Amino acid sequence: MSFNTPIDRRGTNSVKWDLMEKLYGVSPKDGLAMWTADSDYQTAPCVIEAVKAAATQGVFGYSFENDAYFSAIQWWMQTRHSWSIEKDWVLTTQGLGNAIALCLDVWTEPGDAAVIFTPVYHEFAHKVTKAGRVVTECPLVRQDDTYMLDLDDAQSRLTGKEKMLIWCSPQNPSGRVWTVDELRSVSAFARKNGLLLVSDEIHHDLVYAQQTFVPTAVAAPEDTDNTVYLTAASKTFNIAGQRTGNMIIPDPTLRSAMQKRLAMLDYKPSALGVAMITAAYSPEGAAWADAQIAHLQTNREIFDAGINTIPGVWSMPLQSTYLGWVDFSGTGMSYEEVSARIRDTAKIAVSQGPTFGTGGESFMRFNLATQTANVEEAVQRMQAAFADLQ
Amino acid sequence: MSFNTPIDRRGTNSVKWDLMEKLYGVSPKDGLAMWTADSDYQTAPCVIEAVKAAATQGVFGYSFENDAYFSAIQWWMQTRHSWSIEKDWVLTTQGLGNAIALCLDVWTEPGDAAVIFTPVYHEFAHKVTKAGRVVTECPLVRQDDTYMLDLDDAQSRLTGKEKMLIWCSPQNPSGRVWTVDELRSVSAFARKNGLLLVSDEIHHDLVYAQQTFVPTAVAAPEDTDNTVYLTAASKTFNIAGQRTGNMIIPDPTLRSAMQKRLAMLDYKPSALGVAMITAAYSPEGAAWADAQIAHLQTNREIFDAGINTIPGVWSMPLQSTYLGWVDFSGTGMSYEEVSARIRDTAKIAVSQGPTFGTGGESFMRFNLATQTANVEEAVQRMQAAFADLQ
Repeated sequence: MSFNTPIDRRGTNSVKWDLMEKLYGVSPKDGLAMWTADSDYQTAPCVIEAVKAAATQGVFGYSFENDAYFSAIQWWMQTRHSWSIEKDWVLTTQGLGNAIALCLDVWTEPGDAAVIFTPVYHEFAHKVTKAGRVVTECPLVRQDDTYMLDLDDAQSRLTGKEKMLIWCSPQNPSGRVWTVDELRSVSAFARKNGLLLVSDEIHHDLVYAQQTFVPTAVAAPEDTDNTVYLTAASKTFNIAGQRTGNMIIPDPTLRSAMQKRLAMLDYKPSALGVAMITAAYSPEGAAWADAQIAHLQTNREIFDAGINTIPGVWSMPLQSTYLGWVDFSGTGMSYEEVSARIRDTAKIAVSQGPTFGTGGESFMRFNLATQTANVEEAVQRMQAAFADLQ
Repeated sequence: MSFNTPIDRRGTNSVKWDLMEKLYGVSPKDGLAMWTADSDYQTAPCVIEAVKAAATQGVFGYSFENDAYFSAIQWWMQTRHSWSIEKDWVLTTQGLGNAIALCLDVWTEPGDAAVIFTPVYHEFAHKVTKAGRVVTECPLVRQDDTYMLDLDDAQSRLTGKEKMLIWCSPQNPSGRVWTVDELRSVSAFARKNGLLLVSDEIHHDLVYAQQTFVPTAVAAPEDTDNTVYLTAASKTFNIAGQRTGNMIIPDPTLRSAMQKRLAMLDYKPSALGVAMITAAYSPEGAAWADAQIAHLQTNREIFDAGINTIPGVWSMPLQSTYLGWVDFSGTGMSYEEVSARIRDTAKIAVSQGPTFGTGGESFMRFNLATQTANVEEAVQRMQAAFADLQ
């Protein structure tokens, strides 16, 4: 099974494929699903084997987060990210969205505000508003081929109600891999303004060659007492459907508060979630992840080259993630026109740029984690849908 | 694979077997684990096959609660319990404990009280106190071979702070299967006192012949607008480790409040949890559940006959569940003495009666959902540990 083996996910309760017609008006019959951030790949063989072994054993009674699980997480962070963590720093959640919701629940009150740097993963703002909190948007600044922070501008936007900063590193949707200096400056900004830093780092394994991802905890070790780090095997190994992710909280006071809330809600991970993560965070899993990023490199090169042939359309060069971030502002078309062409002519379901907040208005996000043939097909459809611009 | 095929769960991250030494001081080397309420059986073949099929497909991206899942739940409640439910009444939680915690979270405030009828599943009181709420204990009354409600007594114990009644039907730990009249009287008691009724019915499939379980919703249909029904496949099919259970909420206002809270927390079930429940709630699953209860009938007969030979020790005749509820009051021994003999001499880990609240002081709960040979061994060990009483 290679990353280019065709897999038909239609009819498998796949959100990406089976809900795209309902949500985006693109029929799965002839449409391409390039929106929500999972991949069209089988997970790593070691993960599949772990699930099969559990099924063969067949006893699914109460289980616990065992030492092998914590050791695997520790090993992965050390060997893949040069991040030394203690086993007891690791808590388990239902995934990133649940983790952010729990952070808001534990450390903010209704009416408090949370800072986000936009454009950013749309669920950040959704989680904040669903919790009855307020979003303080601080726009990133376009410079050359990527986004930069403007912390002076951000400072001027604070209202005094902010209690939390929800950070994304590497950044979704732009793929930006932040430098150590940038990470340190954000961390200091949070501390200076009394904001708890919640750092979403779930794309940390999907970083392209020539880029170096540094965990926020490694870049700014002096701020670990003010930071909750969110990680997951879900993006790397395409196991988001198992609903298991991690919080890594070095500070005992912060950790204790979250543990108390998790205990109050009787939150514990599933046996299969634990088994899958334990299997994924292994040498076999690492080799598979390396092969995946090489495949994704091909996909993004094909995508960027093809998309950039369309006049006025520009795909931001990805430093990480499989999420192509494409600017249509040069076409002069309205968002509605661009959206309609992608949906109705190209028949591609994509994540809509405006949902990512200020700065996303003229963009669309294309999920490239699919068989290369699908990426090539998408490029052809996009070129055809915007052929009148040639 | 029969229910008597030996299965060694030691070293499988089994809470029951691998944590019993830490929690109960009974070594797994020669001890018997008869405490927490899971079974030592493989789950039904149809459930195992569903997990294997998912592993073979191997793509674990985002998934959703599909129509087959809701249909299976609907089919099970109708065919097994004569309970007609609508698909959209069904919400998914992390299991019973999580569901109770969420109910407390949504419908009570810190300082509010919740009524429980004791002795009852110890986690009811734990969940209430962990949430910063207060327990109002209303003891059940021993009559003949079982427990009865005394609602006049219960009425007199209310402090005015009660907002919720956490009910257990069939009852854990006594196995009591409540009559329609009893269910109606409890439901009316809740309404009269302004208490939301939260009805734990997760043992509803483990009911012995000659007993008829009636869902609270069927017994008291006029009170569905004041009741949250909690069900699960976890006890029936031994899949508690997958952390998936259901709330069935017919009332749209109650349901909407819980849906809002689940959305706020970004709570969604795992793909494998959904697949397992869908497979379990099927004709194949039903046949397997029937075979299991026949096997458990044998276990409880052997257990009761053997235990009741010990002077002063009495096992309550189970109407349902695999949880033997054994009274040691006739021995004249202290709780400490009884507990020590079971732990140190019989080398059996059991659930301690006092944790079940008022009325449980002289009891121990024995989990009989194991291979019959283990039940026979437990009986022999108990007879030997209390041989001086002969």
